[in-house]
Amino acid sequence: MPPLPFTRTAIIGAGLMGSSLARALAETRQSATVALYDHSPEVRAQAMALGLGEVTDSLAATVTGADLVVLAAPVGAFEAIATGIAMHLARGAIVTDMGSVKSAAIAAIAPHLPANALFIPAHPIAGTEQSGPEAGFASLFHGRWQILTPLEDPRPEYQAAIARLACLWEALGSKVEIMDPRRHDLVLAITSHLPHLIAFNIVATAADLETVTDSEVVKYSAAGFRDFTRIAASDPIMWRDVFLNNREAVLEMLGRFNEDLAALARAIRWGDGEALEQAFARARGVRRRIIEAGEDSPAPNFGRDREKG
Amino acid sequence: MPPLPFTRTAIIGAGLMGSSLARALAETRQSATVALYDHSPEVRAQAMALGLGEVTDSLAATVTGADLVVLAAPVGAFEAIATGIAMHLARGAIVTDMGSVKSAAIAAIAPHLPANALFIPAHPIAGTEQSGPEAGFASLFHGRWQILTPLEDPRPEYQAAIARLACLWEALGSKVEIMDPRRHDLVLAITSHLPHLIAFNIVATAADLETVTDSEVVKYSAAGFRDFTRIAASDPIMWRDVFLNNREAVLEMLGRFNEDLAALARAIRWGDGEALEQAFARARGVRRRIIEAGEDSPAPNFGRDREKG
Repeated sequence: MPPLPFTRTAIIGAGLMGSSLARALAETRQSATVALYDHSPEVRAQAMALGLGEVTDSLAATVTGADLVVLAAPVGAFEAIATGIAMHLARGAIVTDMGSVKSAAIAAIAPHLPANALFIPAHPIAGTEQSGPEAGFASLFHGRWQILTPLEDPRPEYQAAIARLACLWEALGSKVEIMDPRRHDLVLAITSHLPHLIAFNIVATAADLETVTDSEVVKYSAAGFRDFTRIAASDPIMWRDVFLNNREAVLEMLGRFNEDLAALARAIRWGDGEALEQAFARARGVRRRIIEAGEDSPAPNFGRDREKG
Repeated sequence: MPPLPFTRTAIIGAGLMGSSLARALAETRQSATVALYDHSPEVRAQAMALGLGEVTDSLAATVTGADLVVLAAPVGAFEAIATGIAMHLARGAIVTDMGSVKSAAIAAIAPHLPANALFIPAHPIAGTEQSGPEAGFASLFHGRWQILTPLEDPRPEYQAAIARLACLWEALGSKVEIMDPRRHDLVLAITSHLPHLIAFNIVATAADLETVTDSEVVKYSAAGFRDFTRIAASDPIMWRDVFLNNREAVLEMLGRFNEDLAALARAIRWGDGEALEQAFARARGVRRRIIEAGEDSPAPNFGRDREKG
């Protein structure tokens, strides 16, 4: 049997993402030991009960001796975690994260790590609207993109670490992509952050209406609204931190969205059917390209959702 | 074997909805004959090739002798269809429709029908983002709401016709609800029309960006955007007609949506994490109520989508 790729992986944050990673590492035998820490005692207890790995009571205990450290917490917690682990990191440890914004993650983490740590920011384009250690599952990363946004660090050991981390994610079933962190934040602002903001917003709007009751909204939600509620059920803390940490790109995309929406509203008000039809017809083309590109596979948790439904 | 509930059902419009109804009627033996007409010769040829029923070349030929007439065309075509069928309708025929807006459907259809016709406006909360006769399937209405918005017509034969139509839809697997047409249009404006408008809009915004390429949008669409593209792939003509014919309710809901979105944008700009977190956390409650109400079953075409993907 070949040696296990990592000796000890420390996962900080045992929610959906961290617990899925722990399960995936165990299933694929990519790490001899998996240690988990979560700032919440309740989550730690759940992680222990689920047998996700060695659950520790401190950041220090988790990362000590780890050759791979993964920050799987909301972005807003990154700076405190980086500060907390810095002096306990093994020499040459690879440090990575699963944050949805990358420039802010780098700014929060990089300055606090020792020079010999090999920090490779990363973002798995995977997830569900569920949260917590019980929501995780080993196949979460199967067939999903894993975006690495490495620092500009020419050291051979850093370049080797990138290759090693890419191999790990491929072993977990992901497709790995290297991207500039600023570009990542711009692309994800339109493909992820703005869609979530819009979904959160329309659900709140619906809930606040005086003219339509909540039970009517729930009852007829299958007509389109329901799909938004699924997206809007995602973790509020995680998303708060995404918006606070990718502010400029999100507000830029939102500005464009608002301009376009104002034009549609005007077309509706003035009965300009041609403008509406043209705008709507274009949207079909984007859908077709997604299907053609094979990016339309259903979320791996689909069956799970259905069981709960 | 009991007598078939209807002798001849005339379906006008052989797209996703009309062709699904034809299939459902055949499968459940609810109509001895099913006749279809579509204004497009190409769609008529497809309907004939698919063996959906008796495909006719004129409105007159389709509705002649029919005891049930179903308008399954975009709302914008209703007035012309009503005018075209009026003088060919059998005495006491039930006329219904599948339009997504009801006040405008009534205004377009009711004035043109003969006094002895029994017009019962209806809206099945069912559909997929596909269009055309090949996209239809018999189980489209299974477990879905069928909203009837009857006129204020105290005649016993009208009340009997409502009961008969409700029975038919129940036989096709739908849950039937009676609603006031204006209320329907208000409720659907928030549960269906606004979500579609928002989805159409964000897809158009993404396609128009200069800073992010189309291929990047497609590649990382799984992060949230993809769900919007599915909704936005719906039939452009049908949706054009929905917005043109439910203008006031849609613009009212859009106004509320815009207010709420402006507040979220402001919270992002000024770093008000608490406001964001509170808004996002509330959205989870709506999702939970949808799941609890059993309104979260996946669309019946889910497997079909996956095959195409």
